[in-house]
Amino acid sequence: MEFSSKLLERAVNEMAQLPGIGKRTALRLVLHLLKQPTEQTQFLTQALTAMREEIKLCKSCHNISDLEVCEICSNPSRNHKIICVVEDVRDVMAIENTNQFKGIYHVLGGKISPIDGIGPSQLTISSLVEKVRSGQVEELIFALSSTMEGDTTNFYIFKQVKDFEVRISAIARGIAVGDELEYADEVTLGRSILHRIPFENSLKNI
Amino acid sequence: MEFSSKLLERAVNEMAQLPGIGKRTALRLVLHLLKQPTEQTQFLTQALTAMREEIKLCKSCHNISDLEVCEICSNPSRNHKIICVVEDVRDVMAIENTNQFKGIYHVLGGKISPIDGIGPSQLTISSLVEKVRSGQVEELIFALSSTMEGDTTNFYIFKQVKDFEVRISAIARGIAVGDELEYADEVTLGRSILHRIPFENSLKNI
Repeated sequence: MEFSSKLLERAVNEMAQLPGIGKRTALRLVLHLLKQPTEQTQFLTQALTAMREEIKLCKSCHNISDLEVCEICSNPSRNHKIICVVEDVRDVMAIENTNQFKGIYHVLGGKISPIDGIGPSQLTISSLVEKVRSGQVEELIFALSSTMEGDTTNFYIFKQVKDFEVRISAIARGIAVGDELEYADEVTLGRSILHRIPFENSLKNI
Repeated sequence: MEFSSKLLERAVNEMAQLPGIGKRTALRLVLHLLKQPTEQTQFLTQALTAMREEIKLCKSCHNISDLEVCEICSNPSRNHKIICVVEDVRDVMAIENTNQFKGIYHVLGGKISPIDGIGPSQLTISSLVEKVRSGQVEELIFALSSTMEGDTTNFYIFKQVKDFEVRISAIARGIAVGDELEYADEVTLGRSILHRIPFENSLKNI
C-alpha cells in the first residue's frame, strides 16, 4: 500500500501492530478517527496512555487493578481460603459474571507454553505455591482452559502443592447447558458421563 | 461487562468507539497492549495524535497529504486537465495501484446521502465546479461506487457542470477480469453487453 501521507502511513502501521488488525482495517479505523472531532483521538490516546502507565497488578492475586490490592482480595466478605486459579483478567470477569463464586482468584498471567517461550518462571506460580505453603488455603480450583498448555500448567502446579494440606479441584467439563447431546464431541460427552453427579445436586442453582 | 479497573474500563470503552470494534475485541486489544512493552503504546498514541493534529488536506484535490499541495497535484508530469472524481483517499490509493491513470484526482470526502445527513455542501463539490468553470479541465471521470448515493452524487455534479465545455465520463462497469459469466449478476452482465467495446481495444493493457 502506498500512502499519500507519512503521518497517515505511520498511524496505520502502528494500528496494524494490534492482533487481528490488518493494514486495511487499520486504514479504515484511522480514517474514521480523521472524520471525527479531534477530541475523540485525544480521548482514545489519553485513555490508552493512562491505562498503560498507571495500571497496577494486585499484589495478592495479580489481577489488573487500580489499587495495590484489588477489590476482590480486599473484600472481607469473600472466602479467602478458596482460590480459583485462572489465566487472565478475562477469566476473572467471566467467572464473576456467573455470581457463583465467593472465593478469591489467582491470576497466572498465561499458561506454560514452551512453543511461545513461556515457562513457569514467567507466570505467578511461585507466589501461588507460597500462599499454599503458608497454610491459609483450603482449596485450589483450577479453571484454566482445557488445552495441552492448560493441562500442563495444572499438572505443574499440582506437583508443587500436592504435599501440602490443600484440596485441589478442577472446574467441571461437560455438555453445556442447553446443548444437544447428538452434536457434542465424544471427549466432552464421555467426561460428562464419567463425572456424572447425583441428580439432586444438578437441580441446584437453576 | 464489569471491569476490575477504571483505567482498563476507560481504555476499553474508548477503543470500542472505533467502527467494527466491539467491547470484547477492544478488551483483547487493550490486554495485548498491556502485555507489550510500554513503548508500543507510546508509539501508537503518538502516531495517532500526530496524524490527527498535523495531517492536512491538499488545497487542490482535498486528498490527505503532509503538504499544502499533495504529491500528485504538484507533479508536473501528470495531466492536470483530466480529473478523476473519487470518494476518499482509499479510492485514490486503489486507482494509483493500477498504474493506469496519469491525470489528477478530486476527493469529494463522501457521497450525497440524506439518510446519513450528508448534503452537497459537506462535500467538496463547489471547488470541483469552480475548477471546471475556470476552463482548465478537459475531462471529468466519475469513479464513485455504483450505489444509490454514488449515482445521486454523480448526477448532482453532472447537472452543475454540463453547460461548461468539459467531457464527462464514468468508469466502465462490467464483469471483473477472471470472473465467470454464469455467476455474474444480471445488472452487471447487462451493462457489460450494452457497453461492449471494439475487440482490439480490449487487448490493450493486458
